[in-house]
Amino acid sequence: MRVLNKDTRVCISLAGRPSDLGTRFHNRLYDELGLDFLYKAFTTDDLEGAVRSVRALGIRGCSVSMPFKTAIIPFLDGLEPSAADIDAVNTVVNDEGRLTGSNTDVEAVGELLERSGLDRDLQVVLRGSGSMASAVSAALARAGFGRTTVWARNEAAGRAIAERDGHAFTTDPDSGDVLVNVTPIGMTGPDEDALAFDAGLLRGASAVIDVVALPAETPLIRAARAEGLPVITGAEVHALQAALQFERYTGVALTRDQVDRASRFARSA
Amino acid sequence: MRVLNKDTRVCISLAGRPSDLGTRFHNRLYDELGLDFLYKAFTTDDLEGAVRSVRALGIRGCSVSMPFKTAIIPFLDGLEPSAADIDAVNTVVNDEGRLTGSNTDVEAVGELLERSGLDRDLQVVLRGSGSMASAVSAALARAGFGRTTVWARNEAAGRAIAERDGHAFTTDPDSGDVLVNVTPIGMTGPDEDALAFDAGLLRGASAVIDVVALPAETPLIRAARAEGLPVITGAEVHALQAALQFERYTGVALTRDQVDRASRFARSA
Repeated sequence: MRVLNKDTRVCISLAGRPSDLGTRFHNRLYDELGLDFLYKAFTTDDLEGAVRSVRALGIRGCSVSMPFKTAIIPFLDGLEPSAADIDAVNTVVNDEGRLTGSNTDVEAVGELLERSGLDRDLQVVLRGSGSMASAVSAALARAGFGRTTVWARNEAAGRAIAERDGHAFTTDPDSGDVLVNVTPIGMTGPDEDALAFDAGLLRGASAVIDVVALPAETPLIRAARAEGLPVITGAEVHALQAALQFERYTGVALTRDQVDRASRFARSA
Repeated sequence: MRVLNKDTRVCISLAGRPSDLGTRFHNRLYDELGLDFLYKAFTTDDLEGAVRSVRALGIRGCSVSMPFKTAIIPFLDGLEPSAADIDAVNTVVNDEGRLTGSNTDVEAVGELLERSGLDRDLQVVLRGSGSMASAVSAALARAGFGRTTVWARNEAAGRAIAERDGHAFTTDPDSGDVLVNVTPIGMTGPDEDALAFDAGLLRGASAVIDVVALPAETPLIRAARAEGLPVITGAEVHALQAALQFERYTGVALTRDQVDRASRFARSA
């Protein structure tokens, strides 16, 4: 068992409503790999003060969730392109007092698209217009998916994302090869039984991506698997973005097997 | 094994040169008692920012060591008498954003004097003029030891403490019933073989107190034991002041046995 000591390095998260996922994921891997680190989730009503504490206490890394992803930017010293492109930070690394923001959601979706081998000429329908939809849209553009359409009820927000990334916009899609859900539809809660794309769209599709992280298998993912379609799940996105944070904070690269096991442990609470 | 989670409460320490004692003492007791707490030592070059982090991150308690004990006072909301009397804080408790400073060194020495049953009419010689000497002097005054003399090479600092607490001052003591060392003499390091009181003074004494915490048995304590004198050791003082912090942070009272075991564990690193 690890014994904390004066030299143990500390990483934290800041979220409006903290979950246990990050704390369990990171600490499990510190234990498994024998790294002298500690990870703890916090919320705050003083974001500037919380960022000052990263500097004042020499905290190595800080994961950032809603509603702080954009608000934190003025308090940092620099941004990597993954964060600058979408004006949203989910990861802060403290290099001896210099705080750099990045966005491992964008990076994780990009890596999963790469691994999927999906053809860049496929027609993509991305449903959603929130901050995670913004990250996925940027990842699709970076990966070269040039035939992407953003589908959103919130026309202003959806059009803004589409225009930024050179995508089309619709309020009523009729078809798509790759269906991407970045709304809460199918998430544990009031909409947990709903399908983000109807049966007609699903039958015409060749792949499905669902960024909902809880449950790991949404109705959309189950329906896609039933049709025999390749899928990327929100659990995969969340695990990989956390793994990319872990690697930035510790300098230690993780195997896919380590990531999968830590992700399963994190979800088992 | 405890698994950290979003609700785990956090206590920290701030010190110019952190040791492992507090981190090991507190976390060991959290484990033993099954308390969902975590304790981590930090240093800082931004004391105001570090105190702001206590508020911003909702940190429950903060132990304070040199050189921050007096400098921290302007950033707190209130002081208990143990801290106000000597203008030095070693403990901060955060009650929903209200930060109160106290001094468990003063309280621990007072409790150990009480337990010792030493007669208040005994003549006390307190050697030292630093911040811990100030705390011990205050504890002696509070406990009613009216025949106390402060002995210090630094005459200005020694006289200031003596005058504050109604004690006498000397630069050359000739006798004393209770000999109290609050200098680094006998501490692990360059002066570890030295005796804070010479053999003549020791032979005339009826009790010895040594506030040096490392090693647990200083040459002075060993010499006093060899003379058959009752002693209070720095290890006892340090363990009890940490226990009083623990009780303030968690609301859980400790048995003497629990304190002794945690203290031994803390020192075993």
